[in-house]
Amino acid sequence: MKQPVHGGNLVWAAQQVGCPVSSILDFSASINPLGPPKTVLTAIESALSSVQHYPDPNYTELRKALSQWHKVPSEWILPGNGAAELLTWAGRQLAQEKLTYVMVPGFKDYWRSLQAYDAKISPVSFAWQVNDSLECFANIRESNAGIIINNPHNPTGKLFTIDSLLPLLERLKLVVVDEAFMDFVSPTQQESLIPLIADYPNLIIVRSLTKFYSLPGLRLGYVIAHPQRIKQWQIWRDPWSVNSLAVEAGIVAIKDEKFTQQTRKWLSVAREQMLTGLSRIKGLKTIPNEVNFLLVKSEISSGRLQQELLEKYRILIRDCSTFETLGDRYFRVAVRTIPENNKLLQGLSDIFNK
Amino acid sequence: MKQPVHGGNLVWAAQQVGCPVSSILDFSASINPLGPPKTVLTAIESALSSVQHYPDPNYTELRKALSQWHKVPSEWILPGNGAAELLTWAGRQLAQEKLTYVMVPGFKDYWRSLQAYDAKISPVSFAWQVNDSLECFANIRESNAGIIINNPHNPTGKLFTIDSLLPLLERLKLVVVDEAFMDFVSPTQQESLIPLIADYPNLIIVRSLTKFYSLPGLRLGYVIAHPQRIKQWQIWRDPWSVNSLAVEAGIVAIKDEKFTQQTRKWLSVAREQMLTGLSRIKGLKTIPNEVNFLLVKSEISSGRLQQELLEKYRILIRDCSTFETLGDRYFRVAVRTIPENNKLLQGLSDIFNK
Repeated sequence: MKQPVHGGNLVWAAQQVGCPVSSILDFSASINPLGPPKTVLTAIESALSSVQHYPDPNYTELRKALSQWHKVPSEWILPGNGAAELLTWAGRQLAQEKLTYVMVPGFKDYWRSLQAYDAKISPVSFAWQVNDSLECFANIRESNAGIIINNPHNPTGKLFTIDSLLPLLERLKLVVVDEAFMDFVSPTQQESLIPLIADYPNLIIVRSLTKFYSLPGLRLGYVIAHPQRIKQWQIWRDPWSVNSLAVEAGIVAIKDEKFTQQTRKWLSVAREQMLTGLSRIKGLKTIPNEVNFLLVKSEISSGRLQQELLEKYRILIRDCSTFETLGDRYFRVAVRTIPENNKLLQGLSDIFNK
Repeated sequence: MKQPVHGGNLVWAAQQVGCPVSSILDFSASINPLGPPKTVLTAIESALSSVQHYPDPNYTELRKALSQWHKVPSEWILPGNGAAELLTWAGRQLAQEKLTYVMVPGFKDYWRSLQAYDAKISPVSFAWQVNDSLECFANIRESNAGIIINNPHNPTGKLFTIDSLLPLLERLKLVVVDEAFMDFVSPTQQESLIPLIADYPNLIIVRSLTKFYSLPGLRLGYVIAHPQRIKQWQIWRDPWSVNSLAVEAGIVAIKDEKFTQQTRKWLSVAREQMLTGLSRIKGLKTIPNEVNFLLVKSEISSGRLQQELLEKYRILIRDCSTFETLGDRYFRVAVRTIPENNKLLQGLSDIFNK
């Protein structure tokens, strides 16, 4: 079966096995299973009638809320129609450089946005299996260039330290860091570049609110970058790219401390459960990380595994064969609730022990 | 006071006079005042929990519904995050041509999308005040070019006949027709190019669902074009640009026949009321049209008029001084409900008779 390019394609999965979308247990998209927060759903409901007006093209209230949250002035923040829309404009921006370094394996959407603007792409091989995995950065020779990286990295979950990224900021003309999964890392271990934003006009940080707050259907992300760049992107893009309900959801979500605490509590336990469970299955190997998904190496082809889990258990995992260089022995799974994780572990166990 | 580039900017208007957004009666955005349909609000509410999943990147169900509505195969249809997102990709496409003709006066967002891609723009002066207003098309000499036009035209409301547009389709390499307001024209008088789509691979039709169904905050539009072009745009743009609630709203909205009938009934009466009312005010002149807004010429500067209406009556009109060539004596008003239109007419009458 032909693989979709991204996780979370439930319509595709349901078509494969002829079942309703609602029967599928989705481990392929790395979304917080505790959400959306009730506070957010209530806020959307109360804001329903606002859809009859255009959104505020300056997104004043949402930017103010994000500004207070990150302690970064509003003019440095631009909300987007999901991080994906902002990657589009990052691609437009990076295409102006001589070339753009892209880590492989990595998130496929970077290629989409760069190729949309005929950017020259130079793949950088990320040796995530070895200890000194960052030597790939040492191979970057052209400084008249840009780079786009994921921190934490998708699909491995590896977290780059601020210190390891500093040389890139010093050397390259443009550094786009996609921190879509940073919120899942516990606060004391986060390595966000947001505190450095004022020092590096060549830095663009992309963030998502849809993964931590389980709102991928609503579309909401934002960029933190120099005000001149924010203004440029506002001139490029359409005036109302973020819908009014996403605006309301975002403002309420980031203030929901209780949901954040519940998520942190769930994740530390559930990730450990998954790591332990997976390590007990002969034929699977995984690497620990600080996020809400795990990359798993399998002795059975990931395509076959995906198919069998879907057909027999209505469980969808992310076959990683569409990630460059990974081949057909890797899959990615989201960490979900304890009972859901048990279902996956049981299914995998059945397949590997038969 | 500095004018916003588009209508419907209630946050700006409220800031001007220090009142809450909800106190302002908005004639500046041309949105159906009867909506959103109740069926749509109910559908959004029922679909709330769907935001926890990614949208189907193929938008299968929505495309199927639009396909049945327009009797055009699904592969020829691409939903977008409002017509504005689709204008972005139209700009990307048009920028590949030697130059793009743009009618002036015209919708400002065409300039935004073309300039985002450094397209060469050649303005075409539209003499809407004279009978044979389409002689502007005769001045189009470069056939190795594209054009973007609004039908019905914004801000005049003029409707171009299919026959008058055919020569453009025959001569030019790319013709983008923005039919955002076509639904407001009564079915027997519509001049949509949709029936011609299979004959002209160089035709791109942009449509909006947010004006007729009063959903500008939700963002929903679509393009009808050759499947090859649809595929190209899908490669360029991000995979999930339309949010899940807009998808549900769109599917339900276009099936709401009752709402459509109510809208047609309201519009024919209310537009007549506005035309008569405006014609009775000495100092104002307007031209009849078939849509839900009117362009009005005023003996008082449109900026001053806008300010006075806002300050004294909390009524927002669209000062047209930001439309090229119109100068400072034109404003645009949406047709709203009979009692709301009376408020506007009373306010204007007070100002002109004092």
